[in-house]
Amino acid sequence: MSEIPYKIYLNEKEMPNAWYNVRADMKKKPAPLLNPQTLKPMTAGELEAVFCGELVKQELDNTNQYTEIPSEILDFYKMYRPSPLIRAYFLEKELKTPAKIYYKFEGNNTSGSHKLNSAIAQAYYAKKQGLKGVTTETGAGQWGTALSMACGFFGLDCRVYMVKCSYEQKPFRREVMRTYGASVTPSPSDTTQVGRKILSEHPNTSGSLGCAISEAVEAATNTDGYRYVLGSVLNQVMLHQSIIGLESKIALEKYGIKPDIIIGCAGGGSNLGGLIAPFMGEKLRGEADYRFIAVEPASCPSLTRGKFAYDYCDTGMVCPLSKMYTLGAEFMPSANHAGGLRYHGMSPILSQLYDDKLLEAVSVDQTSVFEAAVKFARVEGTLPAPESSHAIKAAMDEALKCKETGEAKTILFGLTGTGYFDMYAYQKYNDRQMTDYIPTDAELQESLSRLPKVG
Amino acid sequence: MSEIPYKIYLNEKEMPNAWYNVRADMKKKPAPLLNPQTLKPMTAGELEAVFCGELVKQELDNTNQYTEIPSEILDFYKMYRPSPLIRAYFLEKELKTPAKIYYKFEGNNTSGSHKLNSAIAQAYYAKKQGLKGVTTETGAGQWGTALSMACGFFGLDCRVYMVKCSYEQKPFRREVMRTYGASVTPSPSDTTQVGRKILSEHPNTSGSLGCAISEAVEAATNTDGYRYVLGSVLNQVMLHQSIIGLESKIALEKYGIKPDIIIGCAGGGSNLGGLIAPFMGEKLRGEADYRFIAVEPASCPSLTRGKFAYDYCDTGMVCPLSKMYTLGAEFMPSANHAGGLRYHGMSPILSQLYDDKLLEAVSVDQTSVFEAAVKFARVEGTLPAPESSHAIKAAMDEALKCKETGEAKTILFGLTGTGYFDMYAYQKYNDRQMTDYIPTDAELQESLSRLPKVG
Repeated sequence: MSEIPYKIYLNEKEMPNAWYNVRADMKKKPAPLLNPQTLKPMTAGELEAVFCGELVKQELDNTNQYTEIPSEILDFYKMYRPSPLIRAYFLEKELKTPAKIYYKFEGNNTSGSHKLNSAIAQAYYAKKQGLKGVTTETGAGQWGTALSMACGFFGLDCRVYMVKCSYEQKPFRREVMRTYGASVTPSPSDTTQVGRKILSEHPNTSGSLGCAISEAVEAATNTDGYRYVLGSVLNQVMLHQSIIGLESKIALEKYGIKPDIIIGCAGGGSNLGGLIAPFMGEKLRGEADYRFIAVEPASCPSLTRGKFAYDYCDTGMVCPLSKMYTLGAEFMPSANHAGGLRYHGMSPILSQLYDDKLLEAVSVDQTSVFEAAVKFARVEGTLPAPESSHAIKAAMDEALKCKETGEAKTILFGLTGTGYFDMYAYQKYNDRQMTDYIPTDAELQESLSRLPKVG
Repeated sequence: MSEIPYKIYLNEKEMPNAWYNVRADMKKKPAPLLNPQTLKPMTAGELEAVFCGELVKQELDNTNQYTEIPSEILDFYKMYRPSPLIRAYFLEKELKTPAKIYYKFEGNNTSGSHKLNSAIAQAYYAKKQGLKGVTTETGAGQWGTALSMACGFFGLDCRVYMVKCSYEQKPFRREVMRTYGASVTPSPSDTTQVGRKILSEHPNTSGSLGCAISEAVEAATNTDGYRYVLGSVLNQVMLHQSIIGLESKIALEKYGIKPDIIIGCAGGGSNLGGLIAPFMGEKLRGEADYRFIAVEPASCPSLTRGKFAYDYCDTGMVCPLSKMYTLGAEFMPSANHAGGLRYHGMSPILSQLYDDKLLEAVSVDQTSVFEAAVKFARVEGTLPAPESSHAIKAAMDEALKCKETGEAKTILFGLTGTGYFDMYAYQKYNDRQMTDYIPTDAELQESLSRLPKVG
């Protein structure tokens, strides 16, 4: 094997101590959030009814390049960061590609994914503000688990609204959250007005992420000493997740490596946004060039087939509106889509970068994603999360192109997490019962026709 | 925080390249395995009908201190080793103890435990010998998963007999094995004579580890090009697991740290045996002194309440007899015991060391183990396996003794794995439905009265 080790770790002194805010270097800034009633930009005061004060500042900060990471968060990082940057020697050998493949693996923590990076930051600021607790929603459960761990650490109450079908199908995820002290409520529930309304209209619904968001926001705004936290999409989340890209960049630079292509899966965009942030900064400042590729499921293709427009972040339409690539707040991916990344919209930052053609996007079929996942698991050891496997698939495709052209490109992708709690989906694949579903143009048009009329 | 980092990693050059065989330094060697028919020591030839040739050599080698680790295994190690040695700063703070607590964490791989260390070695030697595949049994599923990963890597067929109740209660474990290409059969099954016999006598049995072992051995010996592999108890397994202790020792020595107490959970003994091996070597050679503590469940107390005698390794009594601390091959821990470590016997090496008073043993109650596990999870982040949590409980007890005496002892314990596939047990604990069960003296006498008469 080469001189570059299989895993590159940073020591504690090499670790970044500030998050990077890509908005500071963007010429076109992401559009502001709009108040769902007035359709005017949300003021800091309005946002503070929902979010912690410090996080509102970060949400609205389009100018500061760096935000110092509080020492309490740096301490917590020591438990699970730096995450390893891994040279995929075995995968390269399997593919017989001249490409050099690296992946940044964020799954080595109990929440099993990169979500902990923003959970610990949001829990910290909530604690610092003297709050009693926070509310949130979770679908697959990665975000809820991460937030439970972070709140457990700071002794903060954590109330999770978990999409009912996940609550029932993923009892283990639920138990991890409970073990960390969180209370978990299946959504829709009778604990909120919006939940009761949905239950009365659709008594047999298995819930949706948008509905769980609406419940969590209502619960936070109606309970003294509580605020709402969200694990993706928001600008503040992209800021916290920049730790992924910053560590990756330092690790690569230690060995004089410059990636040609940087690839991440994209649901709400938090992993991709974090991974590419400092590299995109260089590109925006004209200091270096990279290809960035967002990979999304063909069954929920917000960048590749959605519209760049203002839309609600949640089904209940209680949250602010965000200008983003969206399939429409009422879009529901097919039930047979098991691979995560089910959100109808996309981070406003990534949406703007994509609209400015600074970022590419591809969509991939579910069965090809699981095929790539199983191949990856067998040669690289780690069983990847279905979400992460979208990036694996795209990275393998790029590496195979290199095999054809003979180019020895350097590919970096984000392996956001492990698939240990996604074995129902793997079972479907192992039993050859997994199918692909791609929404028709008519379906998308139907959903997009109901976008709110703004400006 | 102190200058000692939260995590100590070794770089590739610092990694051990030979396993350490503690038998070489033992004055009293572990007793040989006996042929179950003749009750005479098993010859290499007899063992080779069941095990790979190279592994038989390792099994019988009582003299060589070091065995070189093949480069293919060192390559595989790069995927998941070195495992981190972690300073439990947060746990120390929580306990307000002057003790310094370190743990060696073996759970950062998809099998979720230290079992992969021996799985990769056994799969490698099987492949090298030109075999088509291997058979094994698995209970909780850690060993089966580890072996599936190892066989998947080398393209070796892997047939796992999984205790029926685990097969049904842990479908996700089963799917991980299948994803790595293994075939998984619930045991008892109708694919073996011994399985059919047990099924005809006990048609509703939920299976046992001893029964699954019998089936796996029969399947291996009756199939051309197959051998049987076992994940604990055997001398060869202790050899492979010495990597845990070797890495720990190098990592500690980098910072000039000498542990006072070394603690590990003990079921069959593979983790404890591996963790303590090089330290025990120093003690045996009179170069240093350490306290070693084996921690076992009060419901399956082979060291603390068993007998040091020859016994069958499996319920079906087809395997060789081993001289070990045992509760009797027919001993079954209470069904309410959820915390792993259910094996009736103990590694012959550890048994001999314990009999020679070189090793202490304690037993702990299940609910106190889960209490310690949850506390650990909340402050140290990682959700531990129930098995590992026995060591956590004992380490916390020792740290609290230090708090009383004011001594700043250095404690090292083995955190063998993660609890992600054990959430049924955590759920019981979270719902306060977990109870303790300690076998009565009469029960143990009954089981021990049926030990085979040897010598």
